[in-house]
Amino acid sequence: MSSAWLLPEHIADVLPAEARRIEELRRQWLDLARGYGFELVMPPLLEHLESLLSGTGRELNLKTFKLVDQLSGRTLGLRADTTPQAARIDAHLLNREGVTRLCYCGPVLHTRPSGLYSTREQLQFGAEIFGHAGLEAELEVQELALDGLQAAGVPQLTIDLGDARIVRSVLGGALLDAEALTELVAALTAKDGSTVRAMAARCPAETREGLVALLDLYGGDEVLDSASRLLPARGPIQAALADLAWLARHLRQAYPEVQIGFDLSDMSGYAYYSGVRFAIYGGGSADALARGGRYDEIGAVFGRNRPAVGFSVIDLKNLAALVPSGPVRAAVRAPWAEDDALRAAIRALRGRGETVVCILPGHEQETEEFDCDRELTQVDGRWLVRAL
Amino acid sequence: MSSAWLLPEHIADVLPAEARRIEELRRQWLDLARGYGFELVMPPLLEHLESLLSGTGRELNLKTFKLVDQLSGRTLGLRADTTPQAARIDAHLLNREGVTRLCYCGPVLHTRPSGLYSTREQLQFGAEIFGHAGLEAELEVQELALDGLQAAGVPQLTIDLGDARIVRSVLGGALLDAEALTELVAALTAKDGSTVRAMAARCPAETREGLVALLDLYGGDEVLDSASRLLPARGPIQAALADLAWLARHLRQAYPEVQIGFDLSDMSGYAYYSGVRFAIYGGGSADALARGGRYDEIGAVFGRNRPAVGFSVIDLKNLAALVPSGPVRAAVRAPWAEDDALRAAIRALRGRGETVVCILPGHEQETEEFDCDRELTQVDGRWLVRAL
Repeated sequence: MSSAWLLPEHIADVLPAEARRIEELRRQWLDLARGYGFELVMPPLLEHLESLLSGTGRELNLKTFKLVDQLSGRTLGLRADTTPQAARIDAHLLNREGVTRLCYCGPVLHTRPSGLYSTREQLQFGAEIFGHAGLEAELEVQELALDGLQAAGVPQLTIDLGDARIVRSVLGGALLDAEALTELVAALTAKDGSTVRAMAARCPAETREGLVALLDLYGGDEVLDSASRLLPARGPIQAALADLAWLARHLRQAYPEVQIGFDLSDMSGYAYYSGVRFAIYGGGSADALARGGRYDEIGAVFGRNRPAVGFSVIDLKNLAALVPSGPVRAAVRAPWAEDDALRAAIRALRGRGETVVCILPGHEQETEEFDCDRELTQVDGRWLVRAL
Repeated sequence: MSSAWLLPEHIADVLPAEARRIEELRRQWLDLARGYGFELVMPPLLEHLESLLSGTGRELNLKTFKLVDQLSGRTLGLRADTTPQAARIDAHLLNREGVTRLCYCGPVLHTRPSGLYSTREQLQFGAEIFGHAGLEAELEVQELALDGLQAAGVPQLTIDLGDARIVRSVLGGALLDAEALTELVAALTAKDGSTVRAMAARCPAETREGLVALLDLYGGDEVLDSASRLLPARGPIQAALADLAWLARHLRQAYPEVQIGFDLSDMSGYAYYSGVRFAIYGGGSADALARGGRYDEIGAVFGRNRPAVGFSVIDLKNLAALVPSGPVRAAVRAPWAEDDALRAAIRALRGRGETVVCILPGHEQETEEFDCDRELTQVDGRWLVRAL
């Protein structure tokens, strides 16, 4: 009984000051996305497991809470990521021919936290463009992500660019089972040189050299030059490097203050990326604040394989903790009385956007929870606002 | 594979037009509550089951999805109602002495739908006042509920008032086991006369007569008079009837256009109400749009038994379907080009709150998804907005 208030590990309440900041950010992102023409959708929290996980790989499966549907006896999953749901909506429900821009903002739940201080209930905002195969779509979602993080007040933004085609192409010559492949990709992402070298030793020469080269292919513009010298001269790798150069040039022009880096071996996040991928970091946070990229194959399981690019802000709760809060709007204190004129005065103030806190009878002496800087007071029969 | 897009029964995606309306309502409710001084909190979707269900009764238990926490092996519940969570936050986390007003807006999930067309994933908005035992608290949450439904555009509002003390006091003399009691309360709520009469036959005379009288105690002002004649002259019943008369008088004064009714046997909703309770209906909907009341005992399990009154809008999704949608803001169409002046023009328009949709290269001939009534076009080297 006494511990009824204890929450599960990595699950927390959000209290008023923090909740207000999160709500501000939520509105900011949704309004910004709307300004770009992204339409809001609200996919459900619960879906049939196979639908939720289609095309997403093992990592998402492990992160997904499962439960049984009493109505059907089937296994449901609590969504751990919203991107596949947006792809389902584009493919099946909207079924449009042209470009479709969708955005969403809602909770995602994870069976295990991703870090020591991570929450298992994140608030995810995301935006996706379906139906355009060109780099303009990548650029547009990157701009939206950077605009949103700048508007939120995150200092010192860095965008790291990569491309899933590079690691895939390098690994093309390797004969590895699924488990070894997963291990190798994780080691590459973590720049775990000894593991990568040990596993590369079992691969053909070109793959081995490519894998070892990838370990150092992160940093500034020089990375692209090194990559074209050190990596195998395969078509997908050349295309990926050209695309990254194009994006870097456009981003630099639009966001001269944002640092642009490359990380050609980073494959973190979920397994659905098929092309350019990116992660955005801010000063004061070791983890990426937003991640995105191209995932053209994901709609196939829903019967419609459309080009798709998107990103998500991994956790608005975490973002809110990083950026300064806006000032709290001071409120007006009002007495409680059976008085039509008082009621009308309160209504009028609230209608103008003011917060008016009625002091309920008997609570006149309590310390205010709200920061009230004015009060409604009766002067010569009229209710007036007076500074406190 | 081909059915990967099929959602579980009573679970649905919310598509753009509807999602936009729901988001408008969500902001409207949160802003309105803020105007009253309610502070936003965000309790988690997942909690230990015993915490989530404490003091709430069997109905909520049956509605709650359960799953296992991999980190602790304990059973977690997906919240089916947010009110007990708000009480936990007031009792444990904020732990204030004075009046505390909290509000929230988020999804709740139910194992079974409450009706043929109900969703199992509702979007609940709610507001609660802790720390005030007087009727002014009931009146304030009823005003907030009515203001919100009026602002949403719901026509023909009716508020039905009742009080949990009445049925409890009438049943005070009955010796019934828990199951029979549940059945009897459900029959009373449903005005199932034959079941109530059959079960009442096993009760002492005063209880029997009270139960039979309750079956007809719904309607207009005459109900309170009939009740004081027909129900046992017990203290809690007298107090409840006086409270209902006080509230009806104040509501009528503030909302002359809202119909006020009484239903003294309605005990629907969850088992935690301890005093005045109310349900608000609108023209065009058979189900209550909002329900609330006093539930003073609920904080006890969290170690702090505070007076508590609140309400929740049962489902903002359902509400959005009932009320007319606002006009869609028309957008500006812009071409895609590597042109700094164009980018600046787009940025300026978006900064002024406009939606600017960039037509990605190759998609110039597509039917617009967005309603664009203007376009950005280059005239004499300058980018200008022109009506379409």
